[in-house]
Amino acid sequence: MSDTRPLLGITLGDPTGVGPEIVVQSLAWSNVHQECHPIVIGRAHYVQQAIHLFKLDMKVAVADSWEGVLRLVHRTADPSMQVAFSHPSSARDRPIREIICLQAGSPSDEAAIGGTIDARGGQAAYDALFVGTQLCLASKLDAIVTSPLQKKALQLAGHEWPGHTELLAHLCHAKESAMMLYLPPGQPKHGGLAGLGVVHVTLHMALKDVFQHITQATVFEKIELTHRYFSQLRNAMGLKGRPKIAVAALNPHAGESGRFGDEETTIIFPAVQRAQEQGYDAVGPLAVDTLMPKAVQGAYDAVVAMYHDQGHIALKLVDMYEAVNITLGLPIVRTSVAHGTAHDIAWEGKAEYGGMTQAILAAARLARNRRGLVAD
Amino acid sequence: MSDTRPLLGITLGDPTGVGPEIVVQSLAWSNVHQECHPIVIGRAHYVQQAIHLFKLDMKVAVADSWEGVLRLVHRTADPSMQVAFSHPSSARDRPIREIICLQAGSPSDEAAIGGTIDARGGQAAYDALFVGTQLCLASKLDAIVTSPLQKKALQLAGHEWPGHTELLAHLCHAKESAMMLYLPPGQPKHGGLAGLGVVHVTLHMALKDVFQHITQATVFEKIELTHRYFSQLRNAMGLKGRPKIAVAALNPHAGESGRFGDEETTIIFPAVQRAQEQGYDAVGPLAVDTLMPKAVQGAYDAVVAMYHDQGHIALKLVDMYEAVNITLGLPIVRTSVAHGTAHDIAWEGKAEYGGMTQAILAAARLARNRRGLVAD
Repeated sequence: MSDTRPLLGITLGDPTGVGPEIVVQSLAWSNVHQECHPIVIGRAHYVQQAIHLFKLDMKVAVADSWEGVLRLVHRTADPSMQVAFSHPSSARDRPIREIICLQAGSPSDEAAIGGTIDARGGQAAYDALFVGTQLCLASKLDAIVTSPLQKKALQLAGHEWPGHTELLAHLCHAKESAMMLYLPPGQPKHGGLAGLGVVHVTLHMALKDVFQHITQATVFEKIELTHRYFSQLRNAMGLKGRPKIAVAALNPHAGESGRFGDEETTIIFPAVQRAQEQGYDAVGPLAVDTLMPKAVQGAYDAVVAMYHDQGHIALKLVDMYEAVNITLGLPIVRTSVAHGTAHDIAWEGKAEYGGMTQAILAAARLARNRRGLVAD
Repeated sequence: MSDTRPLLGITLGDPTGVGPEIVVQSLAWSNVHQECHPIVIGRAHYVQQAIHLFKLDMKVAVADSWEGVLRLVHRTADPSMQVAFSHPSSARDRPIREIICLQAGSPSDEAAIGGTIDARGGQAAYDALFVGTQLCLASKLDAIVTSPLQKKALQLAGHEWPGHTELLAHLCHAKESAMMLYLPPGQPKHGGLAGLGVVHVTLHMALKDVFQHITQATVFEKIELTHRYFSQLRNAMGLKGRPKIAVAALNPHAGESGRFGDEETTIIFPAVQRAQEQGYDAVGPLAVDTLMPKAVQGAYDAVVAMYHDQGHIALKLVDMYEAVNITLGLPIVRTSVAHGTAHDIAWEGKAEYGGMTQAILAAARLARNRRGLVAD
């Protein structure tokens, strides 16, 4: 049987946050390795520190180049190394002994202290993301999974990006992109057969600024990205029918017939109409507080939310550690955890790593269906 | 044993919506009557229609005055009528044969057709609320429980109020008031020992308009109302310690150190500081998408939310039909369901009535502890 596991780049994000802890803990178990070849991208120093923190019996295999990575992957992919994977049921959670790490960034960034916001942490996050993205764009990596970065640290390092999503869109020269929080299917109350996605029209900005970014064009664009993504996902899953998309209102009570704002009638409804004319199964705008419970119970494949917290409150409440952050509209596959750097508990060995495991497994699935799943 | 059950006024709200259905179904079972004497306020015609819709073996005892109500209550409160209540465990869900209704509003409003938005429905909702509020203010009723109204119908009837909460504050001459969504305690994932309240700084307005209403003064006022309410509730429940209050941020990531808006530093944090100086156990501003899961898991008694959907998305997602709407700061006890008139399914016999049952039981508990629980 040939090895069809995709090559996944997993960045450490800002290494002063919880990134190295959640990456190392996720990679310490064989269930993740059964689905992909994970390549950590960042300073091997932090991987080693996290291994030490958790007293794991693991070592880091360091590569300084892509060729070095491939040599290490082929060595571990050797049939004689794969004995655990040939008995997946019994060996499902077998501990793993080795983590492959591609050195990225500068050794000087290793002086940044865990738990503190530091320009060097921001620079390290930027460097790892840059390397991972370039390797994806060159079709060397099949997907990238990113650990959280801290916007202040990124700014201190001179990179003026409000978040990962916007920076990735820039690095990939993507004209359209959208941040989606995604709950995989199969869990109780986790949406429909294809899971539940919440796609954001606006994202990392002051609430005061969302009004100028919510236009017929941007709302339609996000509906379209959502339709394409879920059409391809449903196809890959063998599900029939068009994806069902609900578009959230901006104002309370969906504007209450125009009494609480007019964006529903002047902007959102026309965008939904345009989507319907394109043949998409889109409805809205719907009052978001009653829409979200219905969506979670499976009435829709996806919700298009108007601003960050509208989507994030709902999906994090349903399952903060199950939700995966997926960027739509990129030429590469990228997933992430839905939480932040958690500097307040970083390097204390307390971080939940379930979200990282889910993000890796989601990226592996997406990468497998990549031809079907890339939006353009 | 004397009858200590409070007298509760239960309005039909807009009778073209689901109000009559959820009221009649809630009052059809003895568990509600074990906790209070419910007096329906509205047109008896609609009570009769709802009884007919559900083919219930019940009749309406109609009163045209408060004296008439008291005569009916004393008759049903007669020990010979109370046999069911003396065996609460065996008779818990015994069907009830009679609903007492105080006629309110005009007979001409009975021509309004179920499921349609109509000025007469709005007027009927106003009339029932007015009568109920006056009876509470005169200490005749111990509390009022309101069925939903429809703002458009209210407006068509010439009453320019964005919602129940604002109209009630006006009728009660309340200087300060706040709308709280409340999940009772004792359910899994429903907050702490005193349940979970979400109190709104702004409510029924366009999202664009919330910025001018979020000030140090309004944020502090809502923290104070929340502190008073939960102090008294905790006292009544025999719980020790000050209520724990978390104040939500307005912007995503709580403004991300000022990058996504400055209301956190210029408005919300100073208000929280002032609350702390008053001795309140208040923290914030906290990013709302990570705050809400913690609050639901019991980390706080209450969350002060900045706008309608911020609070409503969370509590309706946790349990739309368990959440009770309680108005803080009024001189009377008032609860309500958390959902709307649901005109799309009204008078089809489909409405969930669990929320109304919870609203009645919550009002009965609050009325029992009234002296402790009224905010001023």
